[in-house]
Amino acid sequence: MTSTALYPFDMARTPKTLDRFYSVIPAGGIGSRLWPLSRADAPKFLHDLTGSGQTLLRDTWDRLVPLSGEQRIMVVTGRAHRAAVEAQLPALTDENIVLESEPRDSTAAIGLAAAILERREPGVIIGSFAADHVIKNHALFLSAVTEAVAAADAGYITTIGISPTEPAIGFGYIRSAGPLDIGGAPSALTVTEFVEKPDLETAERYVASGNYLWNASMFITRADRLLEEIGRSQPELLAGLLELAEAWDDPATRGPAVDRIWPNLTKIAIDYAVAEPAAAAGKLAVIPGYFDWDDVGDFASLAKLNSGGRKSDLAILGENARVLSDASSGIVVSQSGRVISLIGVKDIVVVDTPDALLVTTSENAQRVKAVVDALKLTGSSDVL
Amino acid sequence: MTSTALYPFDMARTPKTLDRFYSVIPAGGIGSRLWPLSRADAPKFLHDLTGSGQTLLRDTWDRLVPLSGEQRIMVVTGRAHRAAVEAQLPALTDENIVLESEPRDSTAAIGLAAAILERREPGVIIGSFAADHVIKNHALFLSAVTEAVAAADAGYITTIGISPTEPAIGFGYIRSAGPLDIGGAPSALTVTEFVEKPDLETAERYVASGNYLWNASMFITRADRLLEEIGRSQPELLAGLLELAEAWDDPATRGPAVDRIWPNLTKIAIDYAVAEPAAAAGKLAVIPGYFDWDDVGDFASLAKLNSGGRKSDLAILGENARVLSDASSGIVVSQSGRVISLIGVKDIVVVDTPDALLVTTSENAQRVKAVVDALKLTGSSDVL
Repeated sequence: MTSTALYPFDMARTPKTLDRFYSVIPAGGIGSRLWPLSRADAPKFLHDLTGSGQTLLRDTWDRLVPLSGEQRIMVVTGRAHRAAVEAQLPALTDENIVLESEPRDSTAAIGLAAAILERREPGVIIGSFAADHVIKNHALFLSAVTEAVAAADAGYITTIGISPTEPAIGFGYIRSAGPLDIGGAPSALTVTEFVEKPDLETAERYVASGNYLWNASMFITRADRLLEEIGRSQPELLAGLLELAEAWDDPATRGPAVDRIWPNLTKIAIDYAVAEPAAAAGKLAVIPGYFDWDDVGDFASLAKLNSGGRKSDLAILGENARVLSDASSGIVVSQSGRVISLIGVKDIVVVDTPDALLVTTSENAQRVKAVVDALKLTGSSDVL
Repeated sequence: MTSTALYPFDMARTPKTLDRFYSVIPAGGIGSRLWPLSRADAPKFLHDLTGSGQTLLRDTWDRLVPLSGEQRIMVVTGRAHRAAVEAQLPALTDENIVLESEPRDSTAAIGLAAAILERREPGVIIGSFAADHVIKNHALFLSAVTEAVAAADAGYITTIGISPTEPAIGFGYIRSAGPLDIGGAPSALTVTEFVEKPDLETAERYVASGNYLWNASMFITRADRLLEEIGRSQPELLAGLLELAEAWDDPATRGPAVDRIWPNLTKIAIDYAVAEPAAAAGKLAVIPGYFDWDDVGDFASLAKLNSGGRKSDLAILGENARVLSDASSGIVVSQSGRVISLIGVKDIVVVDTPDALLVTTSENAQRVKAVVDALKLTGSSDVL
């Protein structure tokens, strides 16, 4: 069998493991650094941030269908977003949507999906992919996930680390060491460390060393192995997840279990609960990803993504945007239908929504979150 | 009789001439450089640009009442603005409002007022003051006008030139020469030249010389003298104005005369038709004005006016403005009620109206007019 653009890997080599593969999409997180575009009732994953004509959530779904099929993609999201998520993903079945009554961070979200799926299908391999990241080259993504599934089948908590194209300070990094010898995963490397967003000097050192990859929050693992790792660092959290999973598929028991257990689960990111301890114990593998990837963490990133990297350009996002620019660059997000005129403003960020306007620069994009916090404190929560 | 704050001049010296004085307010001009705040249906003079709580037109009226009384102020404005003008000036009588069916520039507007008033009251002295300028010190203004009225009575076309506080490039200049010896107008000087907005180098030279004053478009003159000067440079225009004035005060004849004559009057600014020729002929006098004056010609000027001159401040204009600023300076004009958040933008100009948004910098404020022209060409006249 030959490769195609959609299936660039050797199908003959992988059907057995991919047959056991299930995609999980945690669709949470408002994306406060993208306020006033992203907000509580319109989080980042429900926006079209690339001009593709569809939301990031739908892009994510479409990227995963070739790997696991429409029937094997689970979405974990907030109750408030159920209708919007189902509208975006008409093929999503009731058994594949997990609704959170309140956010309990990524270990609870992904761990619950793992526990439910392992109970339904022992030995399942899951891959967790954020709902609001942007990947342009699907073929290279699919190829990397396929290797990751093989490494997961061999028992590793496996991540895909993006080969850095610049010393970015907005991402965490993964430090890799020597190659692992895993059948079906020829490019798998051991991971020695997960590190937080560095300063510029450190980032430059990381990139120059050739040993660091960007942490794209992708985790591919056997569900039982993930639960085992959660149990090692967070035994109470694991107990809660197993109890929830036990009650999940019976309509009579799910509601009471959620009400009783979910609000008390420890809030902890999966990087801390699983990835860092597993890396320290030598149980974490990484597949380098050579595809374009962005978490669109702030407006500087959004501007870059939409201007093809040219600093002199003005990127415009928004249907029917009416923008008149004279000697200006940066990004305009137009959601209000108003005429927007820019004169002589460089590297500007203008986000125009019906009830709130943001004007800043790419350089200050990371400070947007602080403004959101200030708005909360000053009684302007109506626009958050 | 002693001076007071409102009447700082010697009343005993001036009653005769001031009794003959009539104020004229040409209320025209959209103020395109203040788009999208100023526009066809909401011209500059109908805005509160100083945070005083009332429009510039009303400020102008209030400034003139101590000179001529409410009964002797004539307003020349467009038909479309009649209701708004009358709402601002409840004391304005029907005989004191002159409505233009279309704009024909300042010579026609002021000349028609002069012709009507001269016919009603031969020997009347008129003073023309733009509806959309800002003057803070009323006492010094009144003092200068009182001297100007004396000079006008002596036969001079008289202007008030503002003593420059900086080498502004946004104003025209008046070149003065030696003193005139006019009773009641001790500071009157002859004018040798009216000059257009200069470049910075020229402006610096002007200010350093001490011989130049800013042209504030104030003209005080006997009405008959003004008409004489119009006739000298624009005889056809004068004929039209006299014919209109003849028909004006009879309801049966006014309408037909306006329809027939007004649209055909030559469009020419009073600076060209009257001031420059009169200056060349030695018939123009200037009274130096030492009061704060601004024509609020663009957003840089508006920002300066509202920040007390401090470049580090963010000026905010607009009732119930909801502005959150972090390390930003410049000016925000809020007319939409939306939350406006600025982060790290310096010398910025943000004008937020329900249907149009402008983002620029003080440095680029003069280019706003070009954008308005571009909007006309690109079919966005709905927001002009």
